[in-house]
Amino acid sequence: MHEIAASPERWTKGIIAGDRKLLGRAITLLESSREADQDIADELLAACMSKTGGALRVAITGTPGAGKSTFIEALGLHLVKSGCSVAVLAIDPSSAITRGSILGDKTRMPKLAAEEKAYIRPSPSRVAPGGIASTTHGAMLLCEAAGYRVVLIETVGTGQSEIAVRDIVDTVVLLVLAHAGDELQGIKRGILETADIIAVSKADGAMKSAAETAVRQYRRALAMRTSSSWQPPVLACSAFTGNGVVEVWEAVELFKKEMRTQGQFVARRKMQAKAEVLRAAERMLALEFTRATTQATKLSSLQDQVARGQITARAAARMLVQEFLAR
Amino acid sequence: MHEIAASPERWTKGIIAGDRKLLGRAITLLESSREADQDIADELLAACMSKTGGALRVAITGTPGAGKSTFIEALGLHLVKSGCSVAVLAIDPSSAITRGSILGDKTRMPKLAAEEKAYIRPSPSRVAPGGIASTTHGAMLLCEAAGYRVVLIETVGTGQSEIAVRDIVDTVVLLVLAHAGDELQGIKRGILETADIIAVSKADGAMKSAAETAVRQYRRALAMRTSSSWQPPVLACSAFTGNGVVEVWEAVELFKKEMRTQGQFVARRKMQAKAEVLRAAERMLALEFTRATTQATKLSSLQDQVARGQITARAAARMLVQEFLAR
Repeated sequence: MHEIAASPERWTKGIIAGDRKLLGRAITLLESSREADQDIADELLAACMSKTGGALRVAITGTPGAGKSTFIEALGLHLVKSGCSVAVLAIDPSSAITRGSILGDKTRMPKLAAEEKAYIRPSPSRVAPGGIASTTHGAMLLCEAAGYRVVLIETVGTGQSEIAVRDIVDTVVLLVLAHAGDELQGIKRGILETADIIAVSKADGAMKSAAETAVRQYRRALAMRTSSSWQPPVLACSAFTGNGVVEVWEAVELFKKEMRTQGQFVARRKMQAKAEVLRAAERMLALEFTRATTQATKLSSLQDQVARGQITARAAARMLVQEFLAR
Repeated sequence: MHEIAASPERWTKGIIAGDRKLLGRAITLLESSREADQDIADELLAACMSKTGGALRVAITGTPGAGKSTFIEALGLHLVKSGCSVAVLAIDPSSAITRGSILGDKTRMPKLAAEEKAYIRPSPSRVAPGGIASTTHGAMLLCEAAGYRVVLIETVGTGQSEIAVRDIVDTVVLLVLAHAGDELQGIKRGILETADIIAVSKADGAMKSAAETAVRQYRRALAMRTSSSWQPPVLACSAFTGNGVVEVWEAVELFKKEMRTQGQFVARRKMQAKAEVLRAAERMLALEFTRATTQATKLSSLQDQVARGQITARAAARMLVQEFLAR
């Protein structure tokens, strides 16, 4: 991708003009583990920065099987038909080991992928700490520069990825499935608390009444939450019949309006930008450390002592860090 | 917990003698976010190091609702009845925000908790990078020092926590649920590849034939995997009837035997110890950096520029890192 380094201005112009091919290649550079690629991507991002910030950033989370991609396709089609351009970034943490398993992502949303105003990008998540949030954060900014008005981030809503995605979006929509009986077992309270809006998906056919029961159960569970000024609405929806999808989007817009009124919308974005600086710095520092330390013979001797149970990993780490900082 | 600092030898002796109260308090220190607590915990760990390494370390992973805790209770009771002491460390990533949601963990395994040879410890996972693996790694070592012969680590098998837990155990058992039809949608190939043994749980009553179908589907999916010398067995089991639980444990022991024969068992542990040193060092370094940087006025000025879209987070990070390393 030397041609980008040769004329970043032309590439930036292309991205801002909405050239999907260039956008896609820029995101690929961001995701690269090569530092040189990331430097080029950062140059592009720097040139695009003034055009960012214009999209509504929404995470669609939920456990595997909750119907995230069908929901996103239905919502995306609704938005596109309302004249709004949509970028979808799909984080796939399960592909951390086999990079290849995400190839199916585009075809999971065939109708939306065919729309001119929609851009779908599957992103393999990184195992590296902070990887999910930071790579996706950059990709989101590039999509904003390319003019997309809504960025939907699809992610598995369990554990760390859930918390990481909250660090980069304006709103978190949690999709849950109405299983007979186990609603509140599978989705623990911690995950509920990261959501701004809860949608019980697949509320159609034989599942409809179970979904309605689940809605009531979630409302009851959330009624106990009094810490926040926003009471997360719980809605039933079906990507299959289309029922409720628009209502979920209306809830997203209502949330945005409320947050704006309270001054929290801008404050949250500022806080996110600040956190991103520290994350990027920690990653950079870790890289510097690894580079300096793996060449030192002391490392393998200390590691051997840990492996033999002679010293703790923390004691070994302390010696390495002190040596690194004393250079 | 100053009394620990005052006489670490007495505490170490107590832990090695199997005093659960002291073991529990030592793990609490490990989990503390205060560096002083971690230093004391590390001193205890250092004194215990020669007594570690004796347990078989097994992760039990699976999405929420896959039946991990009932399976662990059934397996734990089987082990205890065979004369083997068991420690259970439950990582609960969903509790990262509400620390309180894990209080129910002990009562989720009431029969096992009542056994004298069993120790159950719910551990809130950290949002901090590397947190899951490192805290649990330390807790596991302490349990080994306390004499437990098997350490079972319960964790949600999605995304980063899954990959992190693999870094600290000998064997990963993945529990999957037989849903009608969606087996291979919910559990993607990446997660399958992190498992050494796959158990289709809740194979009883109305679910029995669906479980058997799922077993065949997983076997077929895994048959395509040729990269490894170990072909992960797929077994059906029911914690309710008890069927198959012993067979899963036999598979764990067979895996251990195979790995030993190939010399991979010890090699893997060595590699894990080495990786733990680097993780601990990166964490320490990040802490040093944060401490040095949050006092600098430059930080907030750079963060403001990022929030206003004037520079990228990476550019700001580079300046901070350079300044930190130049001190």
